[in-house]
Amino acid sequence: MTPFSFRLLATDGAARRGEITTAHGTIQTPVFMPVGTAASVKSLTTEQLERLGPEIILNNTYHLMLRPGIDLLDRLGGVHRFMNWKGAVLSDSGGFQVFSLAKIRKIREEGVEFRSHIDGSKHFLSPERSIEIQTRMGVDIAMAFDECPPHGWSRSEVEKSMEMTHRWARRSLEAREAAPAAGSAPALFGIIQGGTYPDLRRHSAEAIASMEFDGIAIGGLSVGEPKEEMLETMRFTAPLMPSGRPRYLMGVGTPEDLVEGVAAGIDMFDCVMPTRNARNGTLFTSEGKIAIKNARFAADEGPLDPRCSCMTCATVSRAYLRHLYTSGEIAAAVYNTIHNVSFYLDLMRSIRQAIASNSFRSFREAFLARVASGIEV
Amino acid sequence: MTPFSFRLLATDGAARRGEITTAHGTIQTPVFMPVGTAASVKSLTTEQLERLGPEIILNNTYHLMLRPGIDLLDRLGGVHRFMNWKGAVLSDSGGFQVFSLAKIRKIREEGVEFRSHIDGSKHFLSPERSIEIQTRMGVDIAMAFDECPPHGWSRSEVEKSMEMTHRWARRSLEAREAAPAAGSAPALFGIIQGGTYPDLRRHSAEAIASMEFDGIAIGGLSVGEPKEEMLETMRFTAPLMPSGRPRYLMGVGTPEDLVEGVAAGIDMFDCVMPTRNARNGTLFTSEGKIAIKNARFAADEGPLDPRCSCMTCATVSRAYLRHLYTSGEIAAAVYNTIHNVSFYLDLMRSIRQAIASNSFRSFREAFLARVASGIEV
Repeated sequence: MTPFSFRLLATDGAARRGEITTAHGTIQTPVFMPVGTAASVKSLTTEQLERLGPEIILNNTYHLMLRPGIDLLDRLGGVHRFMNWKGAVLSDSGGFQVFSLAKIRKIREEGVEFRSHIDGSKHFLSPERSIEIQTRMGVDIAMAFDECPPHGWSRSEVEKSMEMTHRWARRSLEAREAAPAAGSAPALFGIIQGGTYPDLRRHSAEAIASMEFDGIAIGGLSVGEPKEEMLETMRFTAPLMPSGRPRYLMGVGTPEDLVEGVAAGIDMFDCVMPTRNARNGTLFTSEGKIAIKNARFAADEGPLDPRCSCMTCATVSRAYLRHLYTSGEIAAAVYNTIHNVSFYLDLMRSIRQAIASNSFRSFREAFLARVASGIEV
Repeated sequence: MTPFSFRLLATDGAARRGEITTAHGTIQTPVFMPVGTAASVKSLTTEQLERLGPEIILNNTYHLMLRPGIDLLDRLGGVHRFMNWKGAVLSDSGGFQVFSLAKIRKIREEGVEFRSHIDGSKHFLSPERSIEIQTRMGVDIAMAFDECPPHGWSRSEVEKSMEMTHRWARRSLEAREAAPAAGSAPALFGIIQGGTYPDLRRHSAEAIASMEFDGIAIGGLSVGEPKEEMLETMRFTAPLMPSGRPRYLMGVGTPEDLVEGVAAGIDMFDCVMPTRNARNGTLFTSEGKIAIKNARFAADEGPLDPRCSCMTCATVSRAYLRHLYTSGEIAAAVYNTIHNVSFYLDLMRSIRQAIASNSFRSFREAFLARVASGIEV
């Protein structure tokens, strides 16, 4: 296995300050991982991404296995070399996208048959195949192949799916152990499922924790359930996760969700929100979330966020950003993404400082009070 | 008038090495001006543009008068401050876009009525209005308002249009002199028209040269005429232009066109080709022009252009660029634009060095031989 370790540096209530070491550097936690879907954090060059300073990004196995394909990616030396990214990479297992994006599928115990949403070509993913692909991608952290039940499934459907996810988790671990080049196998995280059912989540947490995963994730949230159910399930599940391994809340969420996740003891997050919102002109600022197309910014000479020191805030005005966005300029997506990703990374930096100085409780209260007072962030 | 001067430093045959001084820095000629249509060189942040090092860019009066509008732009301190651009800016007069993009128009001696291609709103441009707008944009070099006859007009139509362009040229000069804040008036270039008719071009060159313009441009080329007619007209017209003022060939062209333009004595060029081609995945390299989507680049680990030192060539492979382009990633446009603009700026740097060392003739021959041998650049 490639080098991987987790060290807990400090706690503040349930919040944890830690450090993950990988072959591609050390990651300070709690951490937010920008999503680099197809080996590109959307709208950014790798150089721009580097300057924003994330220590780890996420790549999507589903997207990369379809395009450029794993044989090519392997031949080109893996994702780091492909995108010239020197930091760490975590890949998802492809499961979530298969269930949400792929066109036709047969789900069997063995694995999932699906058709590419790009060209309709047939593909197959199983625990073994997913681990093989993630290993050949050369990522630092791989995820076990799981089924992610959508919101609305019955308890018995969710339970049945969860049991299969546990069997797939075991097979994922075995596939990692069986990797031909053992030294290149990534760290592997297991995924807790169980929908919004506390007893299923408890059962799943115990099952996944009992396996030799390097980290544990909460999957199956932010899939359409009401926000309060997401937070409740997260708060219920986090304390059930082993304290000696990193805890990762997958696909979540808003800045508020990150603060709440950290308060519950989560160490790692990923979400397309900062990058997707950037392309849609929705920008996070210390004064609240804004839609840059709004006419009130037309003559606003101030920076997007006066408390932010990102390139966007340091160099151009809200008026210019509004102009670029309403004119459909590509540079709008670039400027906006730089800011939104910077905002998320800054938030995590503040969170880490608050935990280190044992003031996370007051940090969180002040943050949530700002949200409650109508400044939506 | 804002500071403006032109100094001829060296000649090599008809090719000229010069220097233009403006309030926003000195410009080494021959120069290529990247096109920043709507106060954005498409796909680039101003910071990225700065790092590419152009000394002057072009902004489009037509696009900016429609959006964000001149009143707002004026209030925001002009185009330099708007886009945070410290180098020089040349604006066109709006004429070309009115005739090629605007939906409905009435052309009278007084000026042109047209409807915005964006929202159908009614607008009016005349020599006086165009100069007012360009002055309020705060540009360093403005262009006289002209009519640009499309390819295919009869001789008498072109002649009639040219005569109006001359009257508009006179009015443009008078409007500049009458500017309320005389110190802020930009340098002003006149435009030679006359289609592909040598006698009309000669007449127009004499008429425009007789007026007190700070520089002289050849307009009305690259509007659909065969390439050879464009080059012939350019070669015929350039020597008729005064040698003491900068000579600008508007809207041209390919790398080959730039070399031929310099050989004819042209000092300034602009064209959307490097930026537009970049977005279409057509990339200029020292080994020829390539379509990056081509399957032969799928596993190509080499840099886009081994002789180029731009950020794109220094950091990522052709395989990655092909992947980004075929995946529709915004970053593809960014990487490609950085390279194509860099290629054009490097070409002009080589041209300037060749003139300075009195070797432009052999430079040109080697360049055209490469083109003739099938390496299309």
